[in-house]
Amino acid sequence: MESVVQSPVQPTRVVIVGGGFAGIAAARALVGSRAQVTIIDQHNYHTFLPLLYQVATAGLEPADIAYPIRTIFRRAENFTFRHGRVVGINHERSVVLLASGGEIPFEQLVIASGATAAYFSVPGAEVHARPLYSLADARRLRNHLLLTLEAADARGVLDDTPLNFVVVGGGPTGVEIAGAISELLDISVRRDRLRLHPDLTRIILVDLAPRLLTAFPASAGAYAARILSEKGVEVRLNRSVTQVERDRLLLSDGEILPAAAVIWAAGVTVQGTVAATLGESSTGNGRRRVGRDLRVVGYDNVWAIGDAAAVLSGEDMQLAPQLAPVAIQSGRHCGRQITNLLAGRPTEDFRYRNKGIMATIGRNAAVAKLPNGPVIRGVVGWLAWLTLHLVYLVGFRNRLRVLINWTWRYFDWPSGPRLIVADAETTEQ
Amino acid sequence: MESVVQSPVQPTRVVIVGGGFAGIAAARALVGSRAQVTIIDQHNYHTFLPLLYQVATAGLEPADIAYPIRTIFRRAENFTFRHGRVVGINHERSVVLLASGGEIPFEQLVIASGATAAYFSVPGAEVHARPLYSLADARRLRNHLLLTLEAADARGVLDDTPLNFVVVGGGPTGVEIAGAISELLDISVRRDRLRLHPDLTRIILVDLAPRLLTAFPASAGAYAARILSEKGVEVRLNRSVTQVERDRLLLSDGEILPAAAVIWAAGVTVQGTVAATLGESSTGNGRRRVGRDLRVVGYDNVWAIGDAAAVLSGEDMQLAPQLAPVAIQSGRHCGRQITNLLAGRPTEDFRYRNKGIMATIGRNAAVAKLPNGPVIRGVVGWLAWLTLHLVYLVGFRNRLRVLINWTWRYFDWPSGPRLIVADAETTEQ
Repeated sequence: MESVVQSPVQPTRVVIVGGGFAGIAAARALVGSRAQVTIIDQHNYHTFLPLLYQVATAGLEPADIAYPIRTIFRRAENFTFRHGRVVGINHERSVVLLASGGEIPFEQLVIASGATAAYFSVPGAEVHARPLYSLADARRLRNHLLLTLEAADARGVLDDTPLNFVVVGGGPTGVEIAGAISELLDISVRRDRLRLHPDLTRIILVDLAPRLLTAFPASAGAYAARILSEKGVEVRLNRSVTQVERDRLLLSDGEILPAAAVIWAAGVTVQGTVAATLGESSTGNGRRRVGRDLRVVGYDNVWAIGDAAAVLSGEDMQLAPQLAPVAIQSGRHCGRQITNLLAGRPTEDFRYRNKGIMATIGRNAAVAKLPNGPVIRGVVGWLAWLTLHLVYLVGFRNRLRVLINWTWRYFDWPSGPRLIVADAETTEQ
Repeated sequence: MESVVQSPVQPTRVVIVGGGFAGIAAARALVGSRAQVTIIDQHNYHTFLPLLYQVATAGLEPADIAYPIRTIFRRAENFTFRHGRVVGINHERSVVLLASGGEIPFEQLVIASGATAAYFSVPGAEVHARPLYSLADARRLRNHLLLTLEAADARGVLDDTPLNFVVVGGGPTGVEIAGAISELLDISVRRDRLRLHPDLTRIILVDLAPRLLTAFPASAGAYAARILSEKGVEVRLNRSVTQVERDRLLLSDGEILPAAAVIWAAGVTVQGTVAATLGESSTGNGRRRVGRDLRVVGYDNVWAIGDAAAVLSGEDMQLAPQLAPVAIQSGRHCGRQITNLLAGRPTEDFRYRNKGIMATIGRNAAVAKLPNGPVIRGVVGWLAWLTLHLVYLVGFRNRLRVLINWTWRYFDWPSGPRLIVADAETTEQ
């Protein structure tokens, strides 16, 4: 019998930058593999971004839609989490550079750093408009909305200051937040008896496109416009925002709108993130060019997935949209291809399977578009939206809490997390 | 038959400064009365302070222990809430002055502004030690604790930086937070697999007194010391803190303790609050002298209740402690006496009914002292503590959520709200 001396094999270090849908999916596909996986994120939790607008409008709590990343992988022996902010990559030495000065070595690097709000060089937008791309964004926006309502109540109904909430962008995020602000105002007046002047309190949604929800069929956009209008939201199409100031904004048609809050849901970009330092960009918003197996063009050990990547898929090499399903599918694919490489197998091409898109406009109203299928809308669409979001939410306790919160709000029971908990005391009234 | 012409009677305006236990109880006693009641608070919610330490140690979420004040009084026609910070009182014009420049007129004024952390002029304490007296305090302390643990994990086990969590104060708050930090460390290491060096990670509780829980019988203090010691907390008695610096503190015995966090639970004061501008103080910590009906000595239409008042009660005119039951009972009494005045009846004397005190030291361990009764401790005390806190928590949804959170933690199920959601990006690692 021969004795086999095994040399201690150093496990391949896979470093994933970002713990969003894409990064988590990639890490999950590598659980139990021979790789040693590290997710680096500046937050110690995974955020369920599709429900961020509900945190911003006090329908849900931050903890309802966030889950500690370490807890997701608590049973994975080959996983570690590193809390930190990535500021660069040194490819010669194969290390990721952290803001703290620390370095994380890798053999395989996965860029899943997502995207941030795109301001399209509109003057003042980055300073005065409020994005909705992180839990901290949502909390800040919520505090601002609630403080604005409190201040209006303190001024009383005889005061004639306009109270305009302006949403920039008519995609799913813009439609969802406009509908949710309408519900927040309704609760504030009806249940909390805030004295808001009905004629001076307005919600205005602005978009450059000639209709809402351009990613959906025209009927879905018309439906969203009708529901929003019923909720008191004024939809202004065919015009863009040319400037944002502290308490007003300018539209391309020359109108000056006073604004107590400007919510920016106009689009996303990869510029300014670590992904932007990699290879060549192939889209206007800075998404990185990747090969068919999702490796960044020009690198054999660097991958880009999710919002950060310009994922081309299918026979016709179509650019996949920046949506959660693409992030999840591309993350899973990337993890599997790294496993293939570790086993000495060739990588496979990514193929995006479109399972449909959906957007909600508030209680009892949503639109969903199945691929090659009809537009589903109304209560059925809304129930589908509810179910899908509950199923995809990470963690049983989060599902339970979101279900409790939604039930409460649906039946219009008292309370609800309308708390202003600010770090800085910005409540000088 | 005579026709009676009723002159339109202006309702008496009762302004209550502060929406804590005392202010809420006073307003509740005035619901449905002829008074028009306004609570002014810088927060739009009532905070259940006894569970603040659980928010600070990531056992509960902010929304679990807070409830919108407007929602509490949603059915009270004679109630309004005003969001603002009181900076003074003009007695000649009978108006309360707000930081915003606004003024709120009153006929009866109730000071229920509570207390704040007392630093006893210890150099550096106000700057570097962390108080636990508001939801924002709790959130900040939690973020600091979790960031400190993340930083220690990132340094790794080869690093020899000490990781000391120092709690100043051996009363119920100090004992509770020390026990809760111990449980947080346990979860962090065991469940989140944070790499904390066991010999360098310490929790130290410092108190000037010769024993813990001086308000309780000696056996309760000894029990708390034993349980804390089992949980790995080092109890250092008979010494005070003489100076606090950014990352260390000095003790009266000359020892210099490195400290990653200093939690200040050493006592409270009324100094610096609006109550401090009223009449004469009668205690070292600034509580206002009140008459037997709870009116501030020297005023016939200004009342002080709860932590802000030096409430003397009973035959022997004993000074009531600064506890939730005193706040609730004095608030209720004050509301009833205002009703008496409105009806032309004389006011009655306040009498504090001591129903006992309790403190918890963590899972399965608490002490309770009934008046003229025995000390209850262990699991029975803990179950009594749980039940009482659930019952007194405002709002059915909050009770449900706290019950869910406690059940989760008790059975040691995964997740839990260990999220670092900071406004400012203080996460440079």
